Amino acid sequence: MANGFVAAAPPLKDELDIVIPTIRNLDFLEMWRPFLQPYHLIIVQDGDPSKTINVPSGFDYELYNRNDINKILGPRASCISFKDSACRCFGYMVSKKKYIFTIDDDCFVANDPTGKAVNALEQHIKNLLCPSTPLFFNTLYDPFREGADFVRGYPFSLREGVPTAISHGLWLNIPDYDAPTQLVKPLERNTRYVDTVLTIPKGTLFPMCGMNLAFDRDLIGPAMYFGLMGDGQPIGRYDDMWAGWCCKVICDHLGLGIKTGLPYIFHSKASNPFVNLRKEYKGIFWQEDIIPFFQNLTLPKEATTVQECYIYLSKQVKEKLSKLDPYFDKLAEAMVTWIEAWDELNPQGASKANGKA
Amino acid sequence: MANGFVAAAPPLKDELDIVIPTIRNLDFLEMWRPFLQPYHLIIVQDGDPSKTINVPSGFDYELYNRNDINKILGPRASCISFKDSACRCFGYMVSKKKYIFTIDDDCFVANDPTGKAVNALEQHIKNLLCPSTPLFFNTLYDPFREGADFVRGYPFSLREGVPTAISHGLWLNIPDYDAPTQLVKPLERNTRYVDTVLTIPKGTLFPMCGMNLAFDRDLIGPAMYFGLMGDGQPIGRYDDMWAGWCCKVICDHLGLGIKTGLPYIFHSKASNPFVNLRKEYKGIFWQEDIIPFFQNLTLPKEATTVQECYIYLSKQVKEKLSKLDPYFDKLAEAMVTWIEAWDELNPQGASKANGKA
Repeated sequence: MANGFVAAAPPLKDELDIVIPTIRNLDFLEMWRPFLQPYHLIIVQDGDPSKTINVPSGFDYELYNRNDINKILGPRASCISFKDSACRCFGYMVSKKKYIFTIDDDCFVANDPTGKAVNALEQHIKNLLCPSTPLFFNTLYDPFREGADFVRGYPFSLREGVPTAISHGLWLNIPDYDAPTQLVKPLERNTRYVDTVLTIPKGTLFPMCGMNLAFDRDLIGPAMYFGLMGDGQPIGRYDDMWAGWCCKVICDHLGLGIKTGLPYIFHSKASNPFVNLRKEYKGIFWQEDIIPFFQNLTLPKEATTVQECYIYLSKQVKEKLSKLDPYFDKLAEAMVTWIEAWDELNPQGASKANGKA
Repeated sequence: MANGFVAAAPPLKDELDIVIPTIRNLDFLEMWRPFLQPYHLIIVQDGDPSKTINVPSGFDYELYNRNDINKILGPRASCISFKDSACRCFGYMVSKKKYIFTIDDDCFVANDPTGKAVNALEQHIKNLLCPSTPLFFNTLYDPFREGADFVRGYPFSLREGVPTAISHGLWLNIPDYDAPTQLVKPLERNTRYVDTVLTIPKGTLFPMCGMNLAFDRDLIGPAMYFGLMGDGQPIGRYDDMWAGWCCKVICDHLGLGIKTGLPYIFHSKASNPFVNLRKEYKGIFWQEDIIPFFQNLTLPKEATTVQECYIYLSKQVKEKLSKLDPYFDKLAEAMVTWIEAWDELNPQGASKANGKA
């Protein structure tokens, strides 16, 4: 691999939290025990706070329900979604660790083509600990993987890469399709294990899925806001997309990288496409304007921290997207509230979270 | 796969030529016989024209040596390199077919992970016949492959894609490294079969390797010029890189796509890294300026054909790169000569080669 990077990833046990949004007992963790039990879990309980969530024994965790969120954030709790997995971002905010791995409770351990169980977290850590290469495409993909390097014609001045802020993992079995595609292809399953990791090039947007995702809180945490979704909102299932688009433009601006590809998890359960269609349909229209908005956005040079970038972005959302729907006014305000809450809970983080590495 | 595209690729037997640059007998074709024998070969013989090149029996071919090139192009033959595999682009010019597949004579048939021989040409045809998606990244890679589609959050207005102009295939065994990397890692072999095809996003440059490459002559042919390399030139081994950078900015401008990934060939023989270093070392310096030049290049709206784009590009090369070295003056002139020769040999092509699909 390039630059003498080593393939073994340190486990980062004291530097990483696992964030799980849920409304049910976390039986799925049994399967993950060999890989995840050494880590601390932050469980964000959605829905009825009086319900008890069982966590398999032996896991070290803290759990927050809606009452806890309201108590901790006070009026600012309004920026945290209810009855939508977007609530998970509360976990990012209360964590005190450098790295976050977030996973859905219907994601099981995948097997690689040799039948070996995939340690998803280990691969995320590898992805986060070696650089990204957003400025030029490497045709052998991640040059920092074992057995790979930069190919002929790759400028040497770009081979140092940039710090990696986000590692986006994929899903075998049930693919992350929108409601229309689910309706048209109810039986499609993703069976192709693509053995690669690659950097999303600078200037290119991608659909970030929150199902199997890791990131560096210090580098990008304050931009990892999952928006206003679910209860009382006109839209759902765009929480991770929104975070991904915001994070991508901010990473591009601050010289940070985003990787996608390995690791895979096994996504067990397709959500109901009719329910999804109701949640998504406004997003399907809106994204036709949201994407050009992000594609044409230029962050000002003076914005040198994630927070500064995000506040600027919130103003642009208000100015440019609120004509689509009053929802974007509310969202823009919630983005500001989110940053205020983040900085309150992360007083050191507020200065540490300078994206310039 | 998306949009009802079908996975089976028509063989395009009357629409595709195979271009092979060589200085030796083409014994390597024996291995390719099941896949390539039905096609017409254009062999571009480099070096001593008095030498006889043996072609295995049963292959339909035409062969051009230096004397033939000089006779056909007259003074314009100066734009075709000598003693460098860059001479292959003469074959693109004399072809009358819509598609070209070009392959090096040290490339053998690869096996996929199940042990099955890879029909590289069939995969190239699939790549060329279905659209590219340069405007937004799809995390499940090529949405037009069987078992794949666009994921949630991919704007519906972009799902039609754009016509694919180039299919860039990869190499198992000997990777396409530059001389310094070859020297540092003489034993590295590429053993990772990455089962994917993806579109290089708009605005992102990549290192295009000419070893295993297919393209649509009608869409991009006149930009597939491999430059001045080898005999009498200060540089070698940048022929395909140069063509790739030119093609990428022109494809981006004209709304065409470039795919990379599958198919693999088995690259049998590492070239001598010391010889390569001598050929490459100026390029290693120059590419540090060439890459920003291409990254910052904007083609004018009025340039709506590949030829117009290419002529504009040649002027920019003269204006912006000739301060690097007088070589770029010569190269800029050769680029114009190339287009003149192309249009002379392809009088219909000159109008047909309008990149707007």
